[in-house]
Amino acid sequence: MKSKLLILLAGSVLLLTACATPEEETGETTSDGSQSELAAEDTTSTSRQLSDDYYRSLITDGQYQPGVNRGASLGTNSNYNLKAFETGLLEISQDYFSTNDHLIQEGQYLDGETANSWLGRYTPVGEGFDQYGNARTVEEGNENLEGLNPQHNGSKLENERTPIYLKSILEQNFTVQTENGYSLSGISIGLAMNTVDYYQKEQYGASFETDISEEELIQQGKEMADKIVERMRQMEGLEDIPIVVGIFKQTPQDSLAGGTYVAEGISENGSNSVGGWNKLSMKKLVFPLEGGESTELNSFQNFKSEVESFFPNLSGVTAEATYIDDTLVKMKVDLVTQFYGETEVIAFTQHVYDQAVKFLPPNIPIEVSISSINGMEAFLARETGETEFYTHIFD
Amino acid sequence: MKSKLLILLAGSVLLLTACATPEEETGETTSDGSQSELAAEDTTSTSRQLSDDYYRSLITDGQYQPGVNRGASLGTNSNYNLKAFETGLLEISQDYFSTNDHLIQEGQYLDGETANSWLGRYTPVGEGFDQYGNARTVEEGNENLEGLNPQHNGSKLENERTPIYLKSILEQNFTVQTENGYSLSGISIGLAMNTVDYYQKEQYGASFETDISEEELIQQGKEMADKIVERMRQMEGLEDIPIVVGIFKQTPQDSLAGGTYVAEGISENGSNSVGGWNKLSMKKLVFPLEGGESTELNSFQNFKSEVESFFPNLSGVTAEATYIDDTLVKMKVDLVTQFYGETEVIAFTQHVYDQAVKFLPPNIPIEVSISSINGMEAFLARETGETEFYTHIFD
Repeated sequence: MKSKLLILLAGSVLLLTACATPEEETGETTSDGSQSELAAEDTTSTSRQLSDDYYRSLITDGQYQPGVNRGASLGTNSNYNLKAFETGLLEISQDYFSTNDHLIQEGQYLDGETANSWLGRYTPVGEGFDQYGNARTVEEGNENLEGLNPQHNGSKLENERTPIYLKSILEQNFTVQTENGYSLSGISIGLAMNTVDYYQKEQYGASFETDISEEELIQQGKEMADKIVERMRQMEGLEDIPIVVGIFKQTPQDSLAGGTYVAEGISENGSNSVGGWNKLSMKKLVFPLEGGESTELNSFQNFKSEVESFFPNLSGVTAEATYIDDTLVKMKVDLVTQFYGETEVIAFTQHVYDQAVKFLPPNIPIEVSISSINGMEAFLARETGETEFYTHIFD
Repeated sequence: MKSKLLILLAGSVLLLTACATPEEETGETTSDGSQSELAAEDTTSTSRQLSDDYYRSLITDGQYQPGVNRGASLGTNSNYNLKAFETGLLEISQDYFSTNDHLIQEGQYLDGETANSWLGRYTPVGEGFDQYGNARTVEEGNENLEGLNPQHNGSKLENERTPIYLKSILEQNFTVQTENGYSLSGISIGLAMNTVDYYQKEQYGASFETDISEEELIQQGKEMADKIVERMRQMEGLEDIPIVVGIFKQTPQDSLAGGTYVAEGISENGSNSVGGWNKLSMKKLVFPLEGGESTELNSFQNFKSEVESFFPNLSGVTAEATYIDDTLVKMKVDLVTQFYGETEVIAFTQHVYDQAVKFLPPNIPIEVSISSINGMEAFLARETGETEFYTHIFD
């Protein structure tokens, strides 16, 4: 573990070289936390904060610093889940690290190799099973004692095999400005949990599914969160840093909505575990497929039929409605159609505006995008607290 | 001609049936213009005018009315030309038919069959040449006496053959509200002229090019405009309607910018020809490929290099700059990159905002779109007369 940690620290070179002396880089792990302090001369931030909802970013030498495990562990079921996994963690983070005085930086501590070993199954040396559940012997050197997912129990049955619970890990770093530059002030970790674990019984075989209940995935996520925090406390500079953990519940592969965070907790004062867990009750519904008998779905249906009657060849009118505690808080509408020209786009956008004002729920942020195979043709957006829609028709 | 005209009028049924009696539909051409008057009960307009730049649309029975030659004659060299062809005609029309009191409707007079025959070569019965310049005999029934492009002269040589000058025709109708409903008040016709006529010497053969000078294409366009107006004056309801004609100069197939209108004229008071021609001097340059030694290109280069240094893997930073009389009037910037997540998109957008304010020209409308392979990720826009950019990051 220690050698891996050092490779990791050398990898996040732009974060660390500002303060680290060559001696430090060659091996000693110090515990004074100085490496998380960044010198002022070569780090700045993006000067523009577009909205209170967005963090400004920490910039080093005029360059954006990508995360050290860039893309490596973001293996979610769908693009919808991927976006929701990341924006959801940003939202959770805002409750702990204010956007006013904190800058964000993509994760600099968990590199791709670390994340991948943690996402694997716990795999000791000796007799065991491969990913299909076939018996095999794990040779020395091929073990993975850091795997957070459970050891395979050898069953190929959907309800008897041990599933992969944890699908992806996301890290976000937060810094504050100090007299001498910028200093790490907090870390957020997102754990994307499977609601369905897709698996095969043989190579190139059919796909089977093990379902995982919300209760079970929260329980597993909490246990993994403790292990992760315990390991991160060993990393240089992270001994006392607040670590927020969010448990994200992925939607199945064929869902048109992204998943949601179902629990959040925090480890403070150098604790080796996560406490203060809150259950989060956000849900996303795809209209008109979901939404039951709700007033919102009804309004959306009216909107949809008005828009469709106006314009003959509309190929899709859907919306993603986000609820917190059963209250609608956000709506994202997608209109897809074939246009034959700019005159149509303009007329259609004007009409959609009218119907959006008339039928879509008031007092919540709404985004409406109008696209064709050529990409986005127009869009309308009403931000939080506004009554008018902003409109833009792309030239 | 007359029988075609009647089919056409029957085709634009929603425009005409409101007033036309069965007697009128079966043949008599009246000249009282009553058929261009639409009854109030079944026509309305989109109630929202998003901007003074946009016309409201004439809506019939709650439905948008597509043009009668929808898509058929819009054969331009590229999507860039297609958009520019249409938006340019909208801009020209605004000088003649104010957006305040005129409603737009897509062309209801020139149907696909008519437009296609007009776009063909003049082809009388008898000895002639096919599209490759090979001799052939045109049988009776296969002639096209309405073709506006010149008869083929049989040469296969780039500078000796008669090229196709006219590539596409676009029609827009304008109406005003009257006591009894809506009444046709004007028509705009766009003629998309080739600067390069791409041709083959044999089927499946290589592509050759005949260049056409601006002077030549304007001359040809003006002559065709007269013929078109003369023909349209024969159509029922168009006897006295003002007809505006714009001559559009297409860019070659490989250009990244759309073409521009080079001349505009009008036929008024039932005249059989177009007069009052104005030369238009709009041009579009693609930065950084074009733009010579201009200050604007220099500013754009600074913007580009700041943006690129910030973000390592940017795959494209280009702009389309529109000039009128050598003055920059509009800029459209495209940034294409691969993003690994929402945090990057937000940071990048914030940075682009700063650089746009710092480097891009003030006092003109600017649109900046930021895309990845997943489509548009964010965009910024500053409208005419505004100093701040509107920003939107897509969820």
